[in-house]
Amino acid sequence: MSARRGCQWFNFGVNVGTVVPVTDLRDATSRAVAALRAHGPMTRAELARRTGLPKSTVSGVTAALLANGTLEETGAAAAPVRPGDPRAGRGRGRPGTLLTLDARRGEVVGVEFGASHVRARVVDAGHGQGPGAVRRLPLAYGAGDALDATLDLVRELTARPGAAPLLGVGLALALGLGTYRPPVPTRPRGMRQGWEDLDLPAALADALGVPVVADNDANCAARAELLWGAARPYEDLVLVKLHAGVGGAVVIDRQVQTGRRGGAGEFGHVPVDPRGPLCRCGGRGCLEVYAGVPAVLAALAVQHGRLPTPREVLEGAAAGDPACRRALRDAGEATGQVAAWLCNALNPQAIVLTGALAGAGELLAGPVRESVARTALPLNADVDVVIGTLGRDAGPLGAGALALASVPV
Amino acid sequence: MSARRGCQWFNFGVNVGTVVPVTDLRDATSRAVAALRAHGPMTRAELARRTGLPKSTVSGVTAALLANGTLEETGAAAAPVRPGDPRAGRGRGRPGTLLTLDARRGEVVGVEFGASHVRARVVDAGHGQGPGAVRRLPLAYGAGDALDATLDLVRELTARPGAAPLLGVGLALALGLGTYRPPVPTRPRGMRQGWEDLDLPAALADALGVPVVADNDANCAARAELLWGAARPYEDLVLVKLHAGVGGAVVIDRQVQTGRRGGAGEFGHVPVDPRGPLCRCGGRGCLEVYAGVPAVLAALAVQHGRLPTPREVLEGAAAGDPACRRALRDAGEATGQVAAWLCNALNPQAIVLTGALAGAGELLAGPVRESVARTALPLNADVDVVIGTLGRDAGPLGAGALALASVPV
Repeated sequence: MSARRGCQWFNFGVNVGTVVPVTDLRDATSRAVAALRAHGPMTRAELARRTGLPKSTVSGVTAALLANGTLEETGAAAAPVRPGDPRAGRGRGRPGTLLTLDARRGEVVGVEFGASHVRARVVDAGHGQGPGAVRRLPLAYGAGDALDATLDLVRELTARPGAAPLLGVGLALALGLGTYRPPVPTRPRGMRQGWEDLDLPAALADALGVPVVADNDANCAARAELLWGAARPYEDLVLVKLHAGVGGAVVIDRQVQTGRRGGAGEFGHVPVDPRGPLCRCGGRGCLEVYAGVPAVLAALAVQHGRLPTPREVLEGAAAGDPACRRALRDAGEATGQVAAWLCNALNPQAIVLTGALAGAGELLAGPVRESVARTALPLNADVDVVIGTLGRDAGPLGAGALALASVPV
Repeated sequence: MSARRGCQWFNFGVNVGTVVPVTDLRDATSRAVAALRAHGPMTRAELARRTGLPKSTVSGVTAALLANGTLEETGAAAAPVRPGDPRAGRGRGRPGTLLTLDARRGEVVGVEFGASHVRARVVDAGHGQGPGAVRRLPLAYGAGDALDATLDLVRELTARPGAAPLLGVGLALALGLGTYRPPVPTRPRGMRQGWEDLDLPAALADALGVPVVADNDANCAARAELLWGAARPYEDLVLVKLHAGVGGAVVIDRQVQTGRRGGAGEFGHVPVDPRGPLCRCGGRGCLEVYAGVPAVLAALAVQHGRLPTPREVLEGAAAGDPACRRALRDAGEATGQVAAWLCNALNPQAIVLTGALAGAGELLAGPVRESVARTALPLNADVDVVIGTLGRDAGPLGAGALALASVPV
């Protein structure tokens, strides 16, 4: 009742019909297509919310795009709904026809550069997951090898029977600490150490003749989990990638937030204990020195008589090995402490865990959840802690999603 | 060159003129007015960017709003520009005619509830700062006293000669740890301890007959600094309020981010040292136990033979007292540690310091800046550390800005 007075006190008397020119419908069309590219299939209601366009305009624009084959209607929206969360119902999760960009228009390839491999996945223009391929490389391979392997993978995937035209390539790159390149469109936000002399996206774009875009690996993983994985029911979340390095992503309103110069999400270098062990960043007791894969392996070196492999740790933990379980619990509790502080700072709906350690499932997520519940303010402790569902495909798929979102409309 | 291929591959062939209905211009008008209410005077270019409306539509809509007196054109944009920052020039800072909502349409009153006072400021519909007033109250006054004082202040301010019609009231409330109310429009995100039994916004709305909205005090301070103060040149920033409690706000793209349930920005409860002293939140070594006003006063109790007042500490430091300076330096260094981790997580352009301790100026900001430079990743350490310019008016002015932004269009 208190909100009644004061309504429409500003826009009365505007005879919009005679004064205002017809809105640029080409612009509305571009915005609708851009939203579908960035966020994947959605209902008309969600498209109106996402673009800020009036429902009548969305209705007209989508009718035209359906008529000319740019869009197609697919089955009812089936994204999981977070129980009891009123925001989760906004256009997602409720039955409703989904608008999908025509998959036959083309496809992109997403590529992630791992420690000793390059992994690629095809994503079609309708956000369908296509085939993938991997190249094994020596540990700490150079940028030239990365270029050759990527060209090889992209050519192999796009030469397959039935491949749609290649529209672009996306790269998921690990941030090389201390190295920085400015965020121009074809440059990644960070490069591996020793890769500074090759502008990998530009070299690939020259060789392939399509746009090539790049982002941090954790940001790519977040894009993939939002579109296809564990992050689908959420608007606001934090992703933590527990891998050789520890990184992450901040997602607000389903947008990955990169910060002023692309440096956001570096949760690996938030300290768990400022008097703890030295970190490669020059800090002390950073999350990475407790929850990175090397830390977990090192913690088990005495028990194993050598550094175990990540797979040995995950399999050991799954089989009930107490030391492996404890190492993962310790990593999870450290992660939960930093996650709790992120909850106090950002109040997200969910913490999504990815990277090699996330393969431990609840053996990792459980301790993270308990640690968050113990550490965050009560106001901010109501947060879901979930494991990403895309595993090692999150990076390449998310790089593909980035490419789809970035191809100019 | 690599971005050429693939352009416009989706929207060719859409004969928008015959298929799509005329965009709802009433909606465009509402969006333009809402953006001006939320973000204050801006150029047409900024209005187009902020609303996502095509420039031609903005041009038409603003012509109509100028013709009917809803808008007026004011002098060239004069917001400070951050040197060397390409983002700072986006519509702000460059010469350009500003569009301002007609100040005579009405005004709002912003009210902040301090520890022993209630402070109010008038803000007119054109975002002009009006007069203010204060009521002193006993320490830890109750919600009933707060209601009476607020009604008294609002009636005094609106009864002055030449006052425009009252459109709404905004409240800046300190978060009572552990108490939470769901974020419905007229309810604050948190209430002081002991205030749970009175729905202050609803009671005020009933008594005054206008909409009453509320938010956390630090979020209000951020709104004010964005509109009128130190945050004007920035898009992405973190505000830290060092007061009796320590809180803050996250601003991305000039929007205060409140998180899932309004709990974002609680930087006071991010630990500086997890083995440090107990905090009222149940944590250990939280920023608040190092950089809250009570911590700074307690650190100087031996030197003063009693707890000094905040003013004594600031004046002592300004006069060169080494103990006062060291107490502020310690608070600043702790703040800088948490600020550095926020830089790693969010990569903002600026850290804005407000609250009583910010009265120390560079004696506080200097140590914060040094601590950030030492602690943040190099990628994220390029951040401005500035003192808010609005002092104790930031809360009430920001509450007024919230009210202006919230009155229904």
